[in-house]
Formats: sequence, C-alpha cells, structure tokens
Amino acid sequence: MSDVAGVSPEQQAVEQTLVDTVVASFDACEDPRLKEVMVSLTRHLHAFIRDVRLTEDEWAAAIEFLTKAGHITDDVRQEFILLSDTLGASMQTININNQAYADATEATVFGPFFVEDSPAIEQGEDMAFGAPGEPCWVTGTVTGTDGKPLVGAKIEVWEADEDGLYDVQRDAGARAARAHLFTDAEGGYRFWGLTPTPYPIPDDGPVGKMLAAVGRSPLRASHLHFMVTHEGCRTLVTHIFPEGDPIGWKDTVFGVKESLIKRFERQAAGTPTPDGRVVDGTWSTVRFDIVLAPAGA
Amino acid sequence: MSDVAGVSPEQQAVEQTLVDTVVASFDACEDPRLKEVMVSLTRHLHAFIRDVRLTEDEWAAAIEFLTKAGHITDDVRQEFILLSDTLGASMQTININNQAYADATEATVFGPFFVEDSPAIEQGEDMAFGAPGEPCWVTGTVTGTDGKPLVGAKIEVWEADEDGLYDVQRDAGARAARAHLFTDAEGGYRFWGLTPTPYPIPDDGPVGKMLAAVGRSPLRASHLHFMVTHEGCRTLVTHIFPEGDPIGWKDTVFGVKESLIKRFERQAAGTPTPDGRVVDGTWSTVRFDIVLAPAGA
Repeated sequence: MSDVAGVSPEQQAVEQTLVDTVVASFDACEDPRLKEVMVSLTRHLHAFIRDVRLTEDEWAAAIEFLTKAGHITDDVRQEFILLSDTLGASMQTININNQAYADATEATVFGPFFVEDSPAIEQGEDMAFGAPGEPCWVTGTVTGTDGKPLVGAKIEVWEADEDGLYDVQRDAGARAARAHLFTDAEGGYRFWGLTPTPYPIPDDGPVGKMLAAVGRSPLRASHLHFMVTHEGCRTLVTHIFPEGDPIGWKDTVFGVKESLIKRFERQAAGTPTPDGRVVDGTWSTVRFDIVLAPAGA
Repeated sequence: MSDVAGVSPEQQAVEQTLVDTVVASFDACEDPRLKEVMVSLTRHLHAFIRDVRLTEDEWAAAIEFLTKAGHITDDVRQEFILLSDTLGASMQTININNQAYADATEATVFGPFFVEDSPAIEQGEDMAFGAPGEPCWVTGTVTGTDGKPLVGAKIEVWEADEDGLYDVQRDAGARAARAHLFTDAEGGYRFWGLTPTPYPIPDDGPVGKMLAAVGRSPLRASHLHFMVTHEGCRTLVTHIFPEGDPIGWKDTVFGVKESLIKRFERQAAGTPTPDGRVVDGTWSTVRFDIVLAPAGA
C-alpha cells in the first residue's frame, strides 16, 4: 500500500503481506458494510503501527491503557467516550453525520452525561432543581429550515453545576440541572437554568493521564447541552457556549463552533427578572433560536 | 490531507480543520516520541472515520464493544490482546521489532497466556505436569548467528493442553504445560511436552462475537510457545507449528511463518522413547534449532 521511510524493501514486503492477509480474512463477511468498516480499520490501524514503528513496549502500554479505561468505566463513568472525545473522534463523527444544511443549527458532541429519564418541566420553570450556580433565563424558538415554528418539539437540556459536576457524578440517581420541555404553540420555549462555567472532564483515569502527559488541559469550554427532536426533523444534539469564555476554543473535546457561541448577558443583583422570580445576586439571560434540518438531510 | 470521494469541498474543509485542530492540541507535548505517536494516531483514526463515513450508531457500537472488552478483561482474560491479535496488530508490531537478521529464528505473537513464574525443569524432564495430551519429545540447540552454541540460555515453553486450555484458564494459580529450562554446555536442550493441537481463542466475549459476525473462525493453528533469552542476544518470542496442521495458515491471529512450521513425527504406540520413559499410546518428536540475533539487531 504505502512505503515507510527508511525500511528495507524486504521488510516492507513482510509488513504489507500481513496487511493483505488480515484484509483477506474478512472475505467471507456477509455484511458488506461491516466488511468495509473492518477492512478500513485494519488498513488504517496497520498504517499507524507501521508509520510510527510502534515498539513492543508502546504496544504493551496501549493494552494497559485500554484495560485501565475498561476497568474505570461503569454505568456513569465512560472513559472510552472521553477518549473518543479528547481525540476529536466524537466530533468528527458528529461532523460527518450532521453536515451543514441551509441555516440549520450546527451539532456538537453528545458527551457522556445524558440520561434518558430527565424530569419534565413546564415553560418558564427551573431545570436546576437546586443545583448550585448563577441562574440563567434561557429563551428561544424552534423552527424548521423553512422558517415555520415547530410546535411541541422536545427539548432536552442538561449541564454541569458551578462545581463542575453533573448530577449523576454526585449520585447516579440524582436528577438536577437536567430537564425536558416542549415548545409552545408559537414554537417558543423558556426556562431557568444555570450560567455555564468551565469544568474538567473526569481526569483521574487513563484519559486524564494522557492529557497531562501531552500537556493538554482537561477543561471543557463552558456550555449548556441541548437535544432537540421533532417528527420529520433531523435530531439536533448541540451545546451553546458563552461568548468570552476563558476556555472557549481550547475546549478539550473540540466541541466549539462559531455559530454556537452566544452572548450570555449578566444582570446586576436586584435586576427584575422576566417572570418576577426573586433572585439572590446576579443572574444572566441568553437567547438561542434553534433551526432543525429535515430528517435525512 | 486526503480527499474523501463524494464529499463536498466545504464539508472536506470542516473535517480537515478538525483534524488540524486536534493535531495542534499536541503542540505543547514535551516528549517528542509521545507527540509523534499521538499525532499519527489522530491522523489515522480520523482518516478511518472519514473514509468509512462512520455513522453515529456505529460509533456507539464501537464504544459498547470497547466497554464490554474492558469489563471481561481481568488478570487472566485479556480481551484487548485478543482484539489486537485478531486484527493482526500484534503480529505487525512483532514484525517491526524483530526484523529478519541473518539466519536468526523468526518471532511470532506473544499471546495472552505467558506467566512469569513458570516451574523450573531439568533437561529431559516433563513440562506437562499432568496436563492431558499426547507426549512430545522436543529437542534442539540454541546458537548465535555466528553458529556458536549459547550455553545457559533460558528457554520458557508453554502451550494449551489437548482440551485447548492453558493451565491459567482452568485455575489462575495452576502451573502445567508450562516450564523453563536452560541450555546445557553444548547449547542443547530436551524436554517432554505435549503434541500441540488447534484450539479456539476465548470466544465468549466481544472479540468472539466480532469473529462470528465477519465469518472468521476463532481457531488458532496448533503451536508450542517459546521465549528464549541470553545475555547479548535479542530475546526471541516465537512458536513452532506442526506441519500439516488443519488450521495452519488460517490461524486467527496470523502468527504462522513458513520457517516456524516443523515436522512433528508421530511414533506408534510401543515405540521406545529416547530416555526409556514408558508412554501409554502414541507419542511424537520434534526438533527445533534456535538461532538468536545479537541484541540491538
């Protein structure tokens, strides 16, 4: 396939023969897509090993890394998603499957902290459920790329609290700073959440050690997660990121996109809130108008 | 870097920008080798994802595969090594780090069943320690590539029994069909082992499911493991494979090399043994002369 610099033709032949043999081992695969994926994986994996001339100690370190990642992973902690995220593999998969379509809102990484059974809230209610942080009044609309409002679109929102922790990191059964609601008859939505703050991804495992070894920060840009679904539309998984965030483009999972950076307007203590809620201290407000691409776009 | 067929230039640019961003995230890495490996891993991983246009469901299946592999892995079972072996990644790493040198014996995969504390045996003793199987008288010499005998070379040998199981698969503390001995004053060695038989790699985990899904057998070619060490020499990790083995080149971990196929001569029941041992039934004999490359070759 490809020549590797500084390696003799005889050795290249030995290495290429092995690649060809492994590729041929998938000949009997009856699922053409699975075959395509396995053959491509084989070619790229071997190209990597050959390009870097992987040593046996490095191979053993890779096995140990994966083993430790497997052992720290449980129902709440997902080290393999963190690995995929920090190598940009998650974001690349998102890019490929959520290509730009008209003015549809851009997607970003899903992350490991979504749960299926978030509490339902009504319009204007608070999704924080007591999680610590500065209140944030979030409003917007959900429309199609034809500009028409989407009524009854389901909006799932979740975020870390001001300590940088998701509810499930404190207690697998806890539900806070997490909720779902549905757009109203005009496609609008509004709720109280928390002003997002930067936080580290869980960095006490092998992925955290990898980031430290390569001189990278484990910090994510501040963000608020959205997943928006409506019949006939492509499901949107995205975040919004506050303008001027100290981490921003240095996001360790490469999730930031220009179009997803929003102005969170901080309000002085005592500023009246839109719904008469009494807030003890500062609060913020952000608007996020969401456009869904058609299904299959 | 590379164009992907059927993808718009705008989308290519989005994908390539992400690759460049992830690569740049390793800029601060102070270990040049680690940086080289991570950058190459990033490029090849993204090239794979882009080439196959990995779907989000496939990404999720990959995360689930790795999670299950992690959870089945323990001190004895090593699913990540099985994965590396069945993708030929182990054998490619062996190829790269044990290049042909003069007439030095070729290396092959290490496998997951070596343990550090094998029993010591004297010349001519039996390494089976009661493991079931046909007895096999194994003899040979260990020399350098200069042809001179290597005295006191350490030979570790291990193999599956006739039920296809290694001692540690029956009981983590068991030691059978496994031993070490040292070459004599003429560089010679001889011991009783078992005639190797084909066996499946452990296939009740995600790797076994993958092999079944792609129509591959989990069977390894019959083999007897050797690890040979001597000061000043490159450590040799290899197997010998019986000529005429029913699996042979279809070995699911791609370990077979022409030079490692040896004639195991089966002896009729009642044939006198070289050392007067009384064997109940057939037995076999094989000769394996080992040549070690110099260290650093």
